Amino acid sequence: MKQLIYLFTITAVLFASCNTDSQKGKTAETFQPIETNVSARPAGQKHVVGLTSPKMDTVRVGFIGLGMRGPSAVQRFTHIPGAKIVALCDLHPDRVEKSQQILDKAGVPRAAAYSGSEDAWKELCQRDDIDLVYIATDWKRHAQMMIYAMEQGKHVACEVPAAMTMEEIWDVVNTAERTQKHCMQLENCVYDFFELTTLNMAQQGVLGDILYAEGAYIHQLEDFWDSYENDWRMEYNKTHRGDIYATHGMGPACQVLDIHRGDKMNYLVAMDSKPVSIPAYLKEKRGEEAPDFKNGQHTMTMIRTENGKTIHIQHDVASPRPYSRMYQVQGTNGFANKYPNEGYALKADAVEAGTVPNHENLSAHSYVSDEVKKVLMDKYKHPIHIELEETAKKVGGHGGMDFIMDYRLVYCLQNGLPLDMDVYDLAEWCSLAPLTALSLENNSAPVAVPDFTRGHWNDVKGFRHAFVN
Amino acid sequence: MKQLIYLFTITAVLFASCNTDSQKGKTAETFQPIETNVSARPAGQKHVVGLTSPKMDTVRVGFIGLGMRGPSAVQRFTHIPGAKIVALCDLHPDRVEKSQQILDKAGVPRAAAYSGSEDAWKELCQRDDIDLVYIATDWKRHAQMMIYAMEQGKHVACEVPAAMTMEEIWDVVNTAERTQKHCMQLENCVYDFFELTTLNMAQQGVLGDILYAEGAYIHQLEDFWDSYENDWRMEYNKTHRGDIYATHGMGPACQVLDIHRGDKMNYLVAMDSKPVSIPAYLKEKRGEEAPDFKNGQHTMTMIRTENGKTIHIQHDVASPRPYSRMYQVQGTNGFANKYPNEGYALKADAVEAGTVPNHENLSAHSYVSDEVKKVLMDKYKHPIHIELEETAKKVGGHGGMDFIMDYRLVYCLQNGLPLDMDVYDLAEWCSLAPLTALSLENNSAPVAVPDFTRGHWNDVKGFRHAFVN
Repeated sequence: MKQLIYLFTITAVLFASCNTDSQKGKTAETFQPIETNVSARPAGQKHVVGLTSPKMDTVRVGFIGLGMRGPSAVQRFTHIPGAKIVALCDLHPDRVEKSQQILDKAGVPRAAAYSGSEDAWKELCQRDDIDLVYIATDWKRHAQMMIYAMEQGKHVACEVPAAMTMEEIWDVVNTAERTQKHCMQLENCVYDFFELTTLNMAQQGVLGDILYAEGAYIHQLEDFWDSYENDWRMEYNKTHRGDIYATHGMGPACQVLDIHRGDKMNYLVAMDSKPVSIPAYLKEKRGEEAPDFKNGQHTMTMIRTENGKTIHIQHDVASPRPYSRMYQVQGTNGFANKYPNEGYALKADAVEAGTVPNHENLSAHSYVSDEVKKVLMDKYKHPIHIELEETAKKVGGHGGMDFIMDYRLVYCLQNGLPLDMDVYDLAEWCSLAPLTALSLENNSAPVAVPDFTRGHWNDVKGFRHAFVN
Repeated sequence: MKQLIYLFTITAVLFASCNTDSQKGKTAETFQPIETNVSARPAGQKHVVGLTSPKMDTVRVGFIGLGMRGPSAVQRFTHIPGAKIVALCDLHPDRVEKSQQILDKAGVPRAAAYSGSEDAWKELCQRDDIDLVYIATDWKRHAQMMIYAMEQGKHVACEVPAAMTMEEIWDVVNTAERTQKHCMQLENCVYDFFELTTLNMAQQGVLGDILYAEGAYIHQLEDFWDSYENDWRMEYNKTHRGDIYATHGMGPACQVLDIHRGDKMNYLVAMDSKPVSIPAYLKEKRGEEAPDFKNGQHTMTMIRTENGKTIHIQHDVASPRPYSRMYQVQGTNGFANKYPNEGYALKADAVEAGTVPNHENLSAHSYVSDEVKKVLMDKYKHPIHIELEETAKKVGGHGGMDFIMDYRLVYCLQNGLPLDMDVYDLAEWCSLAPLTALSLENNSAPVAVPDFTRGHWNDVKGFRHAFVN
């Protein structure tokens, strides 16, 4: 594999002050983040901020990967008006057949079947009657499949994480810009109820200036390790330090902070604790010694943005503790917290008169009452939820957020609107894996987060979901 | 003020790999944390790990600083058997008189009074009938007062933070080692009920190997800014970046991780968000522009230890949100979380048969029921609480933890036992202020945490409270 070169901007000796006037530290050069190399945008290639494609009555879809996440996606798509399932692909024929039976049950025609060879998915991508390729394979094949599908003139949607290395990420970004195709990462957590309601409150200004957001993937996977094809997920954890599964935390945090819609991530630092529980599991359940197991028991990342905001992200699939994506949003007028309890705290003057029951005496020093919380969550329910809540709950999939994600994808394609998540979101959220590894290998030194838009992070002011007017 | 020199261990160019084999990064030198200078222990000076002093029937105390925290300490000491209040000092005579009236109410003799001059406290320290000087003044005078009192042959106890700069911290450590006097920081949060119960569970092995701990001081101070003499606390926030009030979070985290009792902090990284709410407060309430306000809205610190454990600390006195010290402890067998709800999650096999009601089916994926929580908290109630709970609640002071802190201080002095917190705890917990400032001034670069014991961090195996056998 190619090696990338990181250049330090270094001062051999730094004079700084540890006395009460820490300003003296400023008289010397300061340490600059480690940079990964960013090539100039190739000639004749255009950025895809705000990308739209021509409207289409029907969105014709081909699915690749029908193991864990794929079949439920097929099932959901049978409920989406305007979507047509054209082809199904998996290495294993029996999995394709299982998904065909989902179509039978839904009373829609069977789809073209691809399987049996490592390259069957390429044939699917080559069809000329497909608009969208929907990828739900293991992490390692995501990037090459997205790239090939876009080169075949298809829009792509891909499960998380969609790319694992800086090389893959830049290849995906360049292909999307070269082909001008939509390339969306299937990050479902940005559509969860509390997150989307809170995003709406933030966008309406209820929380004031958002200065800090938190997210995480804290989920002990002990019950799942044996369910990944060829043990691919355990293998990845064995061989990689860093936050290798950051998108569930990053998505909601980056949307509420308008990342590459008026702000951008400048640098990050990561720190992990030594791996203990998974190596112990390998020894106990598989009789396997894993002295070189790399992924930390618990990995933390802090990110600082151009506008002086911060993000805190955690990854822990090893420790015995309740599931949590943390999700916190701190603004100058209010605070939202999802785990272990959903709650809001608001400055009294942050809520319009009439919104809050008049016996309530709001103080940011305590969470609002359940009554006020209900009033707020009804008032700020997101238009997407208002439109889809009932259908979504019927169709299911992580409490409806998977269905909402798929519905929005098809809705935006049908109406020629920008997608909710673009290839730069994909790049930014996925870059945590390689960039945190680089920070960890350097004793938590700061690492620059590249501007994947290469100059266009400030073109759009504020993240918004697109709707037909 | 003196300047300290920080030496980088630098590689002008680092070759690292961003592909799936992140091991390649290891082929190059890695970035080393910024170091602050550590002088060798002066000749004829001995470390004070495990320091004890001769037993004393009565602990004779002099108080300096009777503004906010002082009077309540005087009141608590009137309830401690074996403690005698000998002298009281404050710049303002009326404050001394108020504390004398506390003694009157308690039916104990009035104490010698010192006030009126900036140096009155020195006269108190010079008395030959005082064993302990108890300091509750503003942050800036703490170190000089502790040093002077020890030089006068007195043990000292000082409010948090007891020292603000590396220079002050090293001067305090060297004075304690030179004089062989006890120098304890009055960190009360280590005695809070949930923290001490959880510490006991951890020390009994219920939580397994503790790999990660969290703490914080999240407390919007808007209602308090006008109550500090000469606005000293606001001034400090105006002129200092970094976690300047870290000890409430650090104390419980460092005790559960046995810091300088078998493990030590190696380096930290800090990140803050830009200050917004306090500058807005200054403009609104005082008509004051503060363009150079330094302390961040929210400051995060991550710390890595010699044994591969991690600590996460937050500081936020600006944002509108409920009070929180976070306090989380993650072990390989269980998890404890204090805010916003106290809860435990345990692996089923982590709890001895008989401890848990037999209808309970424990899983680390959810918090234990209130019933199980009560059983656990009763079973693992700390001996200190068993002994003092009732008295503490009567006397009060932050739900009793202030009284327990004072009681333990007097108990250990009377019985010639090591104190619960020594001068190295003071140094470690206070060093976050200057070290996080240094990291922040260098774009969150890692900064080495000195071994304040200078070689003795591994002499004692495991933190324990001392008791008379």
